[in-house]
Amino acid sequence: MANDAISQLIQLFARLPGIGERSAARLTYHVLGNSPEYAHALGTALSDLHSRVRRCRLCRNYTENELCKHCSDPKRDTSLLCVVARPQETEAIERSGHFRGRYHVLHALLSPLDGVGPEALDIAPLLVRIHEEQVREVIVATPLSVEGEATALFLAQELKPSAVRVTRIASGLPHGGELEYTDQVTLTRALDGRREL
Amino acid sequence: MANDAISQLIQLFARLPGIGERSAARLTYHVLGNSPEYAHALGTALSDLHSRVRRCRLCRNYTENELCKHCSDPKRDTSLLCVVARPQETEAIERSGHFRGRYHVLHALLSPLDGVGPEALDIAPLLVRIHEEQVREVIVATPLSVEGEATALFLAQELKPSAVRVTRIASGLPHGGELEYTDQVTLTRALDGRREL
Repeated sequence: MANDAISQLIQLFARLPGIGERSAARLTYHVLGNSPEYAHALGTALSDLHSRVRRCRLCRNYTENELCKHCSDPKRDTSLLCVVARPQETEAIERSGHFRGRYHVLHALLSPLDGVGPEALDIAPLLVRIHEEQVREVIVATPLSVEGEATALFLAQELKPSAVRVTRIASGLPHGGELEYTDQVTLTRALDGRREL
Repeated sequence: MANDAISQLIQLFARLPGIGERSAARLTYHVLGNSPEYAHALGTALSDLHSRVRRCRLCRNYTENELCKHCSDPKRDTSLLCVVARPQETEAIERSGHFRGRYHVLHALLSPLDGVGPEALDIAPLLVRIHEEQVREVIVATPLSVEGEATALFLAQELKPSAVRVTRIASGLPHGGELEYTDQVTLTRALDGRREL
């Protein structure tokens, strides 16, 4: 059973996040019931993915060229650097339409419990960029999770010698957030981060 | 944007059932963040799927050989034939462990609204099997939906000349079903289908 084409594909699909054995079977039978052209296109896109996509020489975001679309954009403000943990987070910030600087992608977050220490963060390229691109401000936009906060604190400490301004994105109630249903940590942060009206 | 490797894979993933644009992006970045070996294995399994899998010469179930595992199993009762709409439904019946006959997969259900008429059902091979394999009973296990019921009635009518016994799987409350929360159609069927205790 486990070696036939259908079972193999079910098992491979089931290794994707959020896809259990049943969904994997549903996807497999869906592909089988559809055109071979679609199966082939999806298969080729997957097989070619890692060879087509590499990391931008400057910011380490995903790109198919030496530099990503942001690092090769001459209109970007090179003195402003936004540090994120994962490539897809640059897309989220781009959608806000309110950031015109460049990015730096860590591809990791500090997580001592999972064995991810400072060496895995590889911040040497970031320090080089701050120096070479004459960066004035580094906005740390790692997630507001334990790992994201630990990484932000670590970065602030490591960047201190380079005399660059290091800021952290604000934490508080999200747009449309109801006080009644907001957790204590978020409320505490929203109060601590209050600003003059 | 739409021509790069990442966007292409997101668009292809988003054509799978139950996977929207956001899930497709999540899957794509997951694959990128994982080993190229996994992406390659999944890609190859998809690309090769249609060429490896074909339909059983007898029952039209998916197989990699001329005959599927059930049709090539000499211990199966060839006089009992269970008709299902889709290949994966044979797996569901197998899991029940209570059927030792053979299957016949229609790969379609009557659905005039979607333009699927009797000719799309292609029941000629079924009629040939009933004759050649000396089938005594055909159990129609199409779904208890409008399309499944229409197909069942159509089959009963078409098989009448061949003098084979045609039965329909029972409809009623599922195992553990509560009367209070059961829909009217199911309750009516459960009452109509009552048996002596």
